[in-house]
Amino acid sequence: MWRKRQKRVFLRDMTDLAKPTVGVIGSGSWATAMIKMLGDNNADKSVHWWVRNEDTAEYIRTFRHNPNYLSAVTVGIPKRHIHTDVRVVIRSVGLIILNTPAAFLKDALKDITPDMLRGKIIVSAIKGIVPDENLIVGDFLQQKYQVPIGQIAVIGGPCHAEEVSLEKLSYLTVASQNTEVAAVVASLINTRYIKTNVSDDIYGTEYAAVLKNIYAVAAGICHGVGFGDNFQAVLVSNAIREMSQFVNAVHPIGRDIKESAYLGDLLVTVYSQFSRNRTFGNMIGKGYSVRSAQLEMNMVAEGYFASNCIQQICIKYGIDLPICNAVYDILYRNLSPVPEMKKLADKLT
Amino acid sequence: MWRKRQKRVFLRDMTDLAKPTVGVIGSGSWATAMIKMLGDNNADKSVHWWVRNEDTAEYIRTFRHNPNYLSAVTVGIPKRHIHTDVRVVIRSVGLIILNTPAAFLKDALKDITPDMLRGKIIVSAIKGIVPDENLIVGDFLQQKYQVPIGQIAVIGGPCHAEEVSLEKLSYLTVASQNTEVAAVVASLINTRYIKTNVSDDIYGTEYAAVLKNIYAVAAGICHGVGFGDNFQAVLVSNAIREMSQFVNAVHPIGRDIKESAYLGDLLVTVYSQFSRNRTFGNMIGKGYSVRSAQLEMNMVAEGYFASNCIQQICIKYGIDLPICNAVYDILYRNLSPVPEMKKLADKLT
Repeated sequence: MWRKRQKRVFLRDMTDLAKPTVGVIGSGSWATAMIKMLGDNNADKSVHWWVRNEDTAEYIRTFRHNPNYLSAVTVGIPKRHIHTDVRVVIRSVGLIILNTPAAFLKDALKDITPDMLRGKIIVSAIKGIVPDENLIVGDFLQQKYQVPIGQIAVIGGPCHAEEVSLEKLSYLTVASQNTEVAAVVASLINTRYIKTNVSDDIYGTEYAAVLKNIYAVAAGICHGVGFGDNFQAVLVSNAIREMSQFVNAVHPIGRDIKESAYLGDLLVTVYSQFSRNRTFGNMIGKGYSVRSAQLEMNMVAEGYFASNCIQQICIKYGIDLPICNAVYDILYRNLSPVPEMKKLADKLT
Repeated sequence: MWRKRQKRVFLRDMTDLAKPTVGVIGSGSWATAMIKMLGDNNADKSVHWWVRNEDTAEYIRTFRHNPNYLSAVTVGIPKRHIHTDVRVVIRSVGLIILNTPAAFLKDALKDITPDMLRGKIIVSAIKGIVPDENLIVGDFLQQKYQVPIGQIAVIGGPCHAEEVSLEKLSYLTVASQNTEVAAVVASLINTRYIKTNVSDDIYGTEYAAVLKNIYAVAAGICHGVGFGDNFQAVLVSNAIREMSQFVNAVHPIGRDIKESAYLGDLLVTVYSQFSRNRTFGNMIGKGYSVRSAQLEMNMVAEGYFASNCIQQICIKYGIDLPICNAVYDILYRNLSPVPEMKKLADKLT
């Protein structure tokens, strides 16, 4: 948990606001969407991009498109700003946007020392748990890199990267305990198709983004075992109440869980046919083992890691969340989805 | 508005609980689903069914299936309990379930006098506004038939009739200010695939069921003008906040709007591709006029009437609901969907 609360950080120490320098870490679809948003935003700025793979980086430098994700997006930043050495990006910028899958964050930052992050704003656009560490990204940055809480922001909100590439109107929430930091980040990513809200609820925003992946797994399992849309609606209405219970226990501040950063993010994930977490859950519901579902999908759904982490936190705080429990029991205790979901159904209202 | 509050009604005056007599009024898909639920429920009871059309009634008597709706459902009630004279049904039963579309309720009851309803429990499974009267069904029954509020119940909850016919697990909420009445009704419709909640929030349950149709129209319009899933999630998260604001103004009691009867019902409607209200809105968003959309669909979406009624109530209570306003302006003031939805988007968070 983030124990220290730093009321005010002087932005002039962190980044030159006249022309901020921004680094994007990661080259998946959400990172590519971020590059597009930063490019379409009107504020004067300099953007650097860390792309892990040299072939990919060279392709982007040559053709100005990411060959692997959202390849319709034109990359407008200069060739020399596309790097494969993460240290170069971190050195070059005052504001860093972390945009890898949670599973790859540690590897992406393996050459980075806490010193290199000193005085910089770190923005997490990652919605997941750092594996092994079992931490949300905000806690990970504080504990492993000694980044003060006031220099951390989280980008949340209902937002499929694919719709950003299509310039479909979307809303993002930027949360930081230092709302000046949140406002700066928001001012760099809003565009004609991206509206931004600013919030000081960094804990709630990040935990909601993590929890929603568990609920998407649950929705997938329910679909897999044969429940219909009527049940799905009941599941989601219980899920948002669970989410409220969780974030109010972990970080009890006044918030309306029905806002877009919480409920909206849950809805866009749970009701998406394309959500990897929902697909993963659906396979589990159909009888795949966790391992065979992961092999079949050739990836690990964020909700899988989230389930274990959230379970530990629930135990610590003495919170009982029936949907999270059911998902954990199915994924980690190998219990059978059909009877577990029937038991869960008896607890829902 | 229902002004009188009758704390307790003696059920023995209304219906014989040892073997209740139940009448279902209407023969659409939701009425047919109700017949199925009553039949699959274990409580001993006698069920009568009013079917408007003589050919349909005769078909059901002969083949034990409704030829027009949910035709897979086997009708288990005796032939002689299927009537085309509504007065016979009303006379025969102590508990009446109204199950027509709101638009046909007045016509269905045209031969019924307040006297005939005296002492009976009236349950509304209608989710809509009575046209011309501009009243929700609870108000209509009180004002036009002098039914005391304690004898009225409302069935709400996220429930597509099609999923009932498939015996997909579903949750219904039965609301009455007389919770004894609500419990009796619940005890008659719960089955292995229908779980029931009991509530005393008859106003909130009925208004939520009406409002959700307006939000489904809004969702359709947004889809029609080209907004995507990211925006849809923001729209719904704003809609539930609007719904909360409305029901708390009209009937300020302690309730959690995130419960299934409110949020769940909203979700199942807004996210259904088959919702007539959403389809209607989609056509409006694509540029159809209200009249041409209605002609094309060969029916009037409930949300259309709801929009006008709710707008009047908002004015009366001084409530400002941006989504409801936008739908009203488009449907009744003939404003163009694209600019109106853009204006609306600026008000959402």
